[in-house]
Amino acid sequence: MYFTQTFIPTLREVPADAVTASHRLMFRGGMIRKLANGLFAYLPLGLRAFRKVERIVREEMDAIGALEIKPTVVVPGELWKESGRWETMGEAMLRTKNRTGSDFVVSPTAEEAVTALVRDELASYRQLPLTLYQINTKYRDEIRPRYGVMRAREFVMKDAYSFHADEAGLDAAYTAMGQAYRRIFKRCGLSVLAVNADSGAMGGSSSEEFMVESDIGDNTLILCESCGYAANVEKAVCGDDFDPPPSLAEAEARAASAPALEKVPTPGVKSVEDLCAFFKTDGAKCVKTLIYKGINAESGILSGREVFFAVAIRGDTAVNEAKLAAAIGASEAVLADEADVARITGAPVGFAGPVGLTGIPLIADRAVTAVHDGITGALAADFHYVHAAYGRDFVPCLIADLRTVKAGDRCARCGGALYEKKGNELGHIFKLGDKYTRSMKARYLDERGQSQIPLMGTYGIGLDRTLASIIEEHHDDDGIIWPLETAPYQILLIPVSYTGAVKEAADTLASALEREGLEVLVDDREERPGVKFKDADLLGIPYRVVVGDRALRLDPPQVEVKRRGEKECLMVEINQAPRFLSNLFT
Amino acid sequence: MYFTQTFIPTLREVPADAVTASHRLMFRGGMIRKLANGLFAYLPLGLRAFRKVERIVREEMDAIGALEIKPTVVVPGELWKESGRWETMGEAMLRTKNRTGSDFVVSPTAEEAVTALVRDELASYRQLPLTLYQINTKYRDEIRPRYGVMRAREFVMKDAYSFHADEAGLDAAYTAMGQAYRRIFKRCGLSVLAVNADSGAMGGSSSEEFMVESDIGDNTLILCESCGYAANVEKAVCGDDFDPPPSLAEAEARAASAPALEKVPTPGVKSVEDLCAFFKTDGAKCVKTLIYKGINAESGILSGREVFFAVAIRGDTAVNEAKLAAAIGASEAVLADEADVARITGAPVGFAGPVGLTGIPLIADRAVTAVHDGITGALAADFHYVHAAYGRDFVPCLIADLRTVKAGDRCARCGGALYEKKGNELGHIFKLGDKYTRSMKARYLDERGQSQIPLMGTYGIGLDRTLASIIEEHHDDDGIIWPLETAPYQILLIPVSYTGAVKEAADTLASALEREGLEVLVDDREERPGVKFKDADLLGIPYRVVVGDRALRLDPPQVEVKRRGEKECLMVEINQAPRFLSNLFT
Repeated sequence: MYFTQTFIPTLREVPADAVTASHRLMFRGGMIRKLANGLFAYLPLGLRAFRKVERIVREEMDAIGALEIKPTVVVPGELWKESGRWETMGEAMLRTKNRTGSDFVVSPTAEEAVTALVRDELASYRQLPLTLYQINTKYRDEIRPRYGVMRAREFVMKDAYSFHADEAGLDAAYTAMGQAYRRIFKRCGLSVLAVNADSGAMGGSSSEEFMVESDIGDNTLILCESCGYAANVEKAVCGDDFDPPPSLAEAEARAASAPALEKVPTPGVKSVEDLCAFFKTDGAKCVKTLIYKGINAESGILSGREVFFAVAIRGDTAVNEAKLAAAIGASEAVLADEADVARITGAPVGFAGPVGLTGIPLIADRAVTAVHDGITGALAADFHYVHAAYGRDFVPCLIADLRTVKAGDRCARCGGALYEKKGNELGHIFKLGDKYTRSMKARYLDERGQSQIPLMGTYGIGLDRTLASIIEEHHDDDGIIWPLETAPYQILLIPVSYTGAVKEAADTLASALEREGLEVLVDDREERPGVKFKDADLLGIPYRVVVGDRALRLDPPQVEVKRRGEKECLMVEINQAPRFLSNLFT
Repeated sequence: MYFTQTFIPTLREVPADAVTASHRLMFRGGMIRKLANGLFAYLPLGLRAFRKVERIVREEMDAIGALEIKPTVVVPGELWKESGRWETMGEAMLRTKNRTGSDFVVSPTAEEAVTALVRDELASYRQLPLTLYQINTKYRDEIRPRYGVMRAREFVMKDAYSFHADEAGLDAAYTAMGQAYRRIFKRCGLSVLAVNADSGAMGGSSSEEFMVESDIGDNTLILCESCGYAANVEKAVCGDDFDPPPSLAEAEARAASAPALEKVPTPGVKSVEDLCAFFKTDGAKCVKTLIYKGINAESGILSGREVFFAVAIRGDTAVNEAKLAAAIGASEAVLADEADVARITGAPVGFAGPVGLTGIPLIADRAVTAVHDGITGALAADFHYVHAAYGRDFVPCLIADLRTVKAGDRCARCGGALYEKKGNELGHIFKLGDKYTRSMKARYLDERGQSQIPLMGTYGIGLDRTLASIIEEHHDDDGIIWPLETAPYQILLIPVSYTGAVKEAADTLASALEREGLEVLVDDREERPGVKFKDADLLGIPYRVVVGDRALRLDPPQVEVKRRGEKECLMVEINQAPRFLSNLFT
């Protein structure tokens, strides 16, 4: 391809909103243009790179026997009502009505559509396992789209869905998918961290996220120096920095020796900080109590579209709302507003406590069980209790791991020190069990003719952000440094000026390179060599081949070959160049 | 690929709504499934065939230098407001609002998005010509989606847009695109008719539709036996079955010799049929007058969002509303309702006429100019005029070709007899001129540094209906007969029973065929040979290779090769089969 016959509008300026390397370089390199906030068009060069990623993903999916399909992008709202997600997806899902008033959704993901498809075809266990995937347009109405295609509203996702007769089948597909993902990211030249996104830390993982480390990552990762434990903070399991939680009997016994509960006036003392100052103690001695509202809760403890409950947590720790929502089986857990707190606790915000709290369930973090002589709100304005003891003065209906792990905490697996990193999620594999197949009534007949609900897994990779992440990981101050397999072209051929003998030699060489199966971009623009070299660095095509007057006059004639990102050039005989370069790609 | 490892749910039954061969066979062959009315999912086999069509389209676009891009599917409503089509697209365009209340559109086409993209990048004439294309999801909210993917709501279109500094550039791109389209349809095995979709019949065509003949076609084509003239009835030009229209002076002179206008009581006589019976004459002597409403009219004659006007047409002809709308530069022309007719004409429906009509413009079909002693409504209930003459009794402000051409009419080009066919539009190429570039303010600087508006062309092909049309043209009672280049697989290998020596030979042969680069589907199901052969006919893979016990025991061992659609089988030595079959595809 000749530069003047394609459309690569390179730029020197950087748009003001391009704060990340990938956004900046994709924009400057003429790979993408913005159509609207969070909506990007790929121009020819960007699309070539995108297709390379797409091909890698497709090849690895095909290699594990996943079957490509193409459902629609616009899907009936009815399917989302069947699964229940019509209610729970919130505003991130773009909805519309057609001319007859029927609800439709611009797919943010396709569990519903694929389950509906499989449900209608599935008859016998003989058809299982079955893994279907698509590489297709998705839309999520991000509140703050940014970083170019890294966090756009419209994007392309590879989403796969597997269906199984039993856990063993699901396990096998899940494992194969995880391995395929590792191969995909490796071929893309990405250093990916597979993190546990699951609440069960000790084996039996049912969800794994594939993260790239990134300063602009929207995920916080918790990592262990010693054992390699890696988890999303939303799911990271707390190691106990106290003795294992006592049984209720032990707690009661221990509380017997504690001083009696005492109600103390604490005028204007509301926050844990205030409390620590007032009582000259530290947060570990306080039991902070927060009133929460669970949305769409479905568990033994709590169930309902909006249910209130109290959370007791040690004063020096913070509630992790993702873990909290998971613990009560809710789609979300949000702090109650002041009026609800006052109504429920009979006191203004700041004086809630677990002692004597009635009317709503009390849930406690595990660490609270270690408090047997604590300070907590007395459910009355300007009063706190001291000497409050778990097991004697309050008994939660659920004790769970609810607090946020932070750098410096002990690893739950090995006790090592944990540290934090920011990460961007590129992929996610997830065992769904029968969540969708049950609600959407998928069934098959097993060997004995019994009707059974298939198990399901879901597996996604964001192609646009995978592409952007490649650039994040492979660039320098001058531009992109494409890994070989995802480069939009393999060779950038630069005639120092596209005239006379140089033009002729460049054209001949370009044809010879293409005959070797190499993808060649010829910079035939009427630009000074300096401009061409600067754009060569910007575009980051792996091998730059310069055809110049002087080297052509050597006997035999030579061209200069340089690998992007390396300093050294190499002189290669022009007739040997096609073979030489083609060997670099095999 | 092994049958049991892919997902091809073939069926014997036909769904009730599948009335066309392509819908029936794609459904029965497990190529597609319905997600909702007008929304279809491609299953693995269907997607393979779809990708073949996609590849042909992409190769031919690349071959003429069109550059592939990927804008978004969801585009800002703002762009459509700029072009004015936000108002004119009507309910076929699926609209939505995002969480901030901004308008968005699920693209039905992309003139706006691509013009916006190019507008921001275009600076100099040196960047022109530029042809960009995408192969991407589109959505049109068809009122009556049917015939499977032939007329679905969501579909994939290849849409290309070219930008030019001058007419010559646009002409060249338009011609190249037309040639590419002919190559695409030829490679797809389709007999396509390129029809004039333009009002200027005599050369200078600026729009061409590529049609396949089809009983279920939603277009009526007008074709000439003699000269090959072919046009969509919406645009087909009328040949005059009367002397060329007289000048106004000639008409006046001629009318001078006609009897004087006379008002005659015609109680209850409303339709042209009634009139003919009452006056014992024929429709060619009547001037029918209809009151129309033009929507979004923009022309010298009429302009406004809703404007009323009268159309005079000879009683034996019918108004072609597409031609009428084009003649007055409106997006649509619809008949006025009864109340409006009464208000405007002062008479009930049935008594409108051109004589004495005031307050709204009068437009006449060319044939009306030949009426110099006609019968027409008198703008009063139960009265008509006789002896009405064009030029004396009424003078329209516009005379145009407004009537529908029908089978038996004379060809406007050669005078030959016209006939009709039904057709489905697969592609459309269109010279837009500056319609979008002007309204959306695209500019470039010409050689002299002057700001200019680029010219534009637009070129679409529907991939899904192209695929369905291939099946419409290539099938028999038993199933599909794929043309070689669009077949989902090239070889269907059938071991009569997938066990023992037959299994071993089939596996070995499958590998050998794949090493030759052939795409092979092995029917390894535990089914009777009869079932496999029936499915082989249904799926229509070009070559069926049967591995059977008896032929394997021959010396040397043989397999049976049969081309789908032909009766004869051929015995081929198993070792020679890979080379033999591969030669059939080169």
